[in-house]
Amino acid sequence: MRDMLGREEVIPVEEALGRIFSHFIPKPPPSVKLPIDQSLGRVLSYDVFSDENLPEFRRSTVDGYAVSASDTFGATEGIPAYLNMRYEIKMGEEPAFELAKGEAARIATGGMLPLGADAVIMLEQTQQIDAEMIEAVKSLAPGENVIQAGDDVKKGDCILKKGHRLRPQDIGVLAGTGIPEIAAYGKPKVSIISTGDEIVPPERPVKPGQVRDMNSYNLAGLISSAGGIPLRKGIFSDEYTDIRSILESSMKDSGIILITGGSSVGTKDMTAQVINDIGEPGVLFHGVALKPGKPLIGGLVHGIPVFGLPGHPAAVTVCFYLFILPVLKALSGESVRTAGTIKDIIRARIDRNIASGPGREEHIGVSLEERNGELWAVPLLGKSGLLTTMIKSDGLAIIPLRKTGLEAGEIVEVRLF
Amino acid sequence: MRDMLGREEVIPVEEALGRIFSHFIPKPPPSVKLPIDQSLGRVLSYDVFSDENLPEFRRSTVDGYAVSASDTFGATEGIPAYLNMRYEIKMGEEPAFELAKGEAARIATGGMLPLGADAVIMLEQTQQIDAEMIEAVKSLAPGENVIQAGDDVKKGDCILKKGHRLRPQDIGVLAGTGIPEIAAYGKPKVSIISTGDEIVPPERPVKPGQVRDMNSYNLAGLISSAGGIPLRKGIFSDEYTDIRSILESSMKDSGIILITGGSSVGTKDMTAQVINDIGEPGVLFHGVALKPGKPLIGGLVHGIPVFGLPGHPAAVTVCFYLFILPVLKALSGESVRTAGTIKDIIRARIDRNIASGPGREEHIGVSLEERNGELWAVPLLGKSGLLTTMIKSDGLAIIPLRKTGLEAGEIVEVRLF
Repeated sequence: MRDMLGREEVIPVEEALGRIFSHFIPKPPPSVKLPIDQSLGRVLSYDVFSDENLPEFRRSTVDGYAVSASDTFGATEGIPAYLNMRYEIKMGEEPAFELAKGEAARIATGGMLPLGADAVIMLEQTQQIDAEMIEAVKSLAPGENVIQAGDDVKKGDCILKKGHRLRPQDIGVLAGTGIPEIAAYGKPKVSIISTGDEIVPPERPVKPGQVRDMNSYNLAGLISSAGGIPLRKGIFSDEYTDIRSILESSMKDSGIILITGGSSVGTKDMTAQVINDIGEPGVLFHGVALKPGKPLIGGLVHGIPVFGLPGHPAAVTVCFYLFILPVLKALSGESVRTAGTIKDIIRARIDRNIASGPGREEHIGVSLEERNGELWAVPLLGKSGLLTTMIKSDGLAIIPLRKTGLEAGEIVEVRLF
Repeated sequence: MRDMLGREEVIPVEEALGRIFSHFIPKPPPSVKLPIDQSLGRVLSYDVFSDENLPEFRRSTVDGYAVSASDTFGATEGIPAYLNMRYEIKMGEEPAFELAKGEAARIATGGMLPLGADAVIMLEQTQQIDAEMIEAVKSLAPGENVIQAGDDVKKGDCILKKGHRLRPQDIGVLAGTGIPEIAAYGKPKVSIISTGDEIVPPERPVKPGQVRDMNSYNLAGLISSAGGIPLRKGIFSDEYTDIRSILESSMKDSGIILITGGSSVGTKDMTAQVINDIGEPGVLFHGVALKPGKPLIGGLVHGIPVFGLPGHPAAVTVCFYLFILPVLKALSGESVRTAGTIKDIIRARIDRNIASGPGREEHIGVSLEERNGELWAVPLLGKSGLLTTMIKSDGLAIIPLRKTGLEAGEIVEVRLF
């Protein structure tokens, strides 16, 4: 996109992303049934309700004796209450008796309270006098050390929401409420098309002037980590017909299409041309106020988001987090659509002064260090475009659009890798 | 372990972990060869060296013209330097010419510099006069906008260390240096043995007094997330012979063995008895100054770490992060052995006063909120032992051993889930 003077128009990151989301209607791949032990990291396609109370019965939270709290009222170390120890409650069994006044039943953590009991006194708060008698040295409140039926989950409660990505503890709770199988959205497929006459795959020797394809490998890893399925489509020459043909065929099997490389000016324009020629609305932006990542192209073709990524490896990573990740999350059915959640972006103090051009957002590779209980972000300097900087980075420090740099000691947001 | 008065001895977390690591000699599973596109999250079993220079040739970092810097010395907007535009450098090809004095060659980002050129002037810093002549309006330093051969990686450089867990950008760099295959340690297998007469699997209805196995599902998810292979061995009754037999058979296929449940006092002692009976050194600690997680048993049998985990689901999660994760990382061959890295534990302000008993480390489920640019940890209150608290948690706030509580507004460390 060019302005009236023919200059390339660059727009802020937020506006660029807004243009995608104002056209993009995410339709996650069809839902599949999965046993819960294969559901880690999958996104629920429905609200999960419990068919049961959890617990189903009154359980003890300690090892001790089930009692009627009223039998302990006023008990102290000096004036203990005396109770008849008549029963032992077996784990996993319903007590076959009812506790009478003045009686106690031995119970373990998780055991089921018998009728007649409404509290549990901890083992440490008792003394065993003989085989049939204990002393209680503490006055209990009714309900003390007891989880009531349904305290945790009530029958009919929604335990997990549609759009939630399952963590280990969520799967534990599904098992605990008797749900052995769930329905989750399919994983979105993302095509990665590498372009460039100079690009060769890693298993082939390079001739002078050639470089190896690293972006498709970096992107495939980023996509897998985010719960997508990367489809590496191979390396294509900078020819209109080649790029158009692989883009059209990728529309049949992918929910998102990424075209990397095309570093020469002509190729960039050609990628934009192909996107525009294939379908509406085509290119939505071409150029973002972002460093690295300025030449990014974003568009939508027949409902499928298509990105033309800069060839620079660091730019690919930055564009992934800012643009592709939120689109991929939306297409995964995940309910949180912002790329950066509270956990992915942390705060640290920048280690030195950093200059930055005004009017663009800038991302700088940093390593993190702890000093006197504070986190510091140490910028990894060196020429732009070095791959090794990315290996040494713990994350990317973000210099916002409206800042012209950072002063040493200033707080900066860092997106963790 | 009991002290002289017969009381259960509890020891600090650090000391307990120290006892394991003073006996445990981690031997990661044998190394396997993997194509790099299947190596995400795997741990390198060797130092990876580069066989090549990266780049192999002098590359331009911008779109512009390759020149000899000396031809631009003193050039300004007012007094531009004039250059003959004689060549265009094709991507992926070695220039077949040598640049003479006063000449320029069109070059794209990533293009190979011709002989005779030592800098690249950006397109924006030039004006095209006619088909054969350009104006340069900036004085360049030699090497400006050029990456030299080997600038990024020199032949023979170690690019990734043994014990490093591969991230997307690492795989990109392996591809970029022509390494299509790596060797990584095998994934450690971790047996999970559920015990308890009251435990039933999630697909079976529960009778009064029974509860479902959720710990083995939670643990399996935690182990997978940390790069291990969980082996759920099933549910076993609280019988010495049953537990001994499944523990002995698990030693044949696992690098770590976890026994969960056994919530009654007798069962805990029995688990410890089995561990001691099977082999040296047996139980190394029984009881930790930790809440939840106090009844944890840790030991080593014929070189294999064995843990007896409390039945309480929140305790299982806490014990996983503090004990099992560092052992699993060591067994994975990962070079960082501490459970909490700078990225897993963040700082936040606690939202309200929290009481805590002295003499133990305490972990409390919290949700995270951002307020005026600061992170706050909101404790999830409610009876201990509730599963739903774990669903609502973003992480665990840590109250250290020597603190007797937290005041609202105080900074606390939070381990993220």
